Amino acid sequence: MLPDLRDKRVLDLGCGFGWHCRYAREQHARLAIGVDLSENMLEQARAMTNDSEIKYIRHAIEDIDFKAGEFDIVISSLALHYVEQFDIICKKIYGFLAPGGTFVLSVEHPVFTALESQDWYYSPQGERLHWPVDGYHHEGLRRTSFLSNNVVKYHRTVATHMNALIEAGFTIRKVSEPQPSEELLAGNPDMQDETRRPFLLRSQQ
Amino acid sequence: MLPDLRDKRVLDLGCGFGWHCRYAREQHARLAIGVDLSENMLEQARAMTNDSEIKYIRHAIEDIDFKAGEFDIVISSLALHYVEQFDIICKKIYGFLAPGGTFVLSVEHPVFTALESQDWYYSPQGERLHWPVDGYHHEGLRRTSFLSNNVVKYHRTVATHMNALIEAGFTIRKVSEPQPSEELLAGNPDMQDETRRPFLLRSQQ
Repeated sequence: MLPDLRDKRVLDLGCGFGWHCRYAREQHARLAIGVDLSENMLEQARAMTNDSEIKYIRHAIEDIDFKAGEFDIVISSLALHYVEQFDIICKKIYGFLAPGGTFVLSVEHPVFTALESQDWYYSPQGERLHWPVDGYHHEGLRRTSFLSNNVVKYHRTVATHMNALIEAGFTIRKVSEPQPSEELLAGNPDMQDETRRPFLLRSQQ
Repeated sequence: MLPDLRDKRVLDLGCGFGWHCRYAREQHARLAIGVDLSENMLEQARAMTNDSEIKYIRHAIEDIDFKAGEFDIVISSLALHYVEQFDIICKKIYGFLAPGGTFVLSVEHPVFTALESQDWYYSPQGERLHWPVDGYHHEGLRRTSFLSNNVVKYHRTVATHMNALIEAGFTIRKVSEPQPSEELLAGNPDMQDETRRPFLLRSQQ
């Protein structure tokens, strides 16, 4: 869903190991700035990066501050469900973008984040019966775990995501709830379950 | 979610008993045309209507044909999940609207339509455990029942709805997944379950 990156100034919010920053430069972006809160991830990002036009900044996404119109493209991949105030972030991002700029966003899907269990509902035999949804309209904090670590996320509805983007000034150009490709499905039968419920909500604006 | 209706030319697709047509005229719309396939519903709509500026037309929504720019507002409330080709309808509606016109849409929510059962998942004691989602990415026909009648609906994802509107030319201005008001909740404890999963997807464009 990324637009043409050539000569573009790119900001990646929640850059992790810096994959999108390096990809942007491979696609001939003019510069890329990655922001993440995790010093551990940024250290690894720096170790994997040899490019003076990529900068990594340790910062909470909520507190970022750049000049108006400083970027042409803002990317945030699977990071903003960790941020409490999505509406404020959207307004900030809109301000950082030059006219005609693009924001490409993905978050865990509201169907995925509604319940803290964030897991299938199983039969007594361990079969995945369906994906359970509950508390959809109760937005806010969800305490989950990932690889035995406690993780705090924020659940927001589809409408809340869309309206925050629109109210920040964005025009939504494309929405996507990606599912595995045919190739991936062919090679990984387990992936079939990924067609049973949406996992990601992506949008370009 | 309806805009100001004064002096507006209004089309209601899936008008049923004509409630929106009469409401539009009460709000001083210039005229209202209601389209529905059910002669039974239209008969009742006509019996409840005494207004020469409201017309009811029996037609499948798929086959509607009006002049370009003939309407200022198109409404479709809980009808388009019965229509197979949502993208084609969106393009038609965009064409019928005058510049600056508005399309207000509501459909059953994709979380609601994904499974044919369209019901809660119950405990052996009859408690509503959660709302089950499955087959979300398998769009298309769903055979359900309503008041002992067989009903055919079409399940589409959130992304498919949004992108069909955008590709037809619309700019999405607001998205809503309405839930019962505080007053309704206070008077009807059963309504509390309506906060547990989205039932409607509404958008204004």
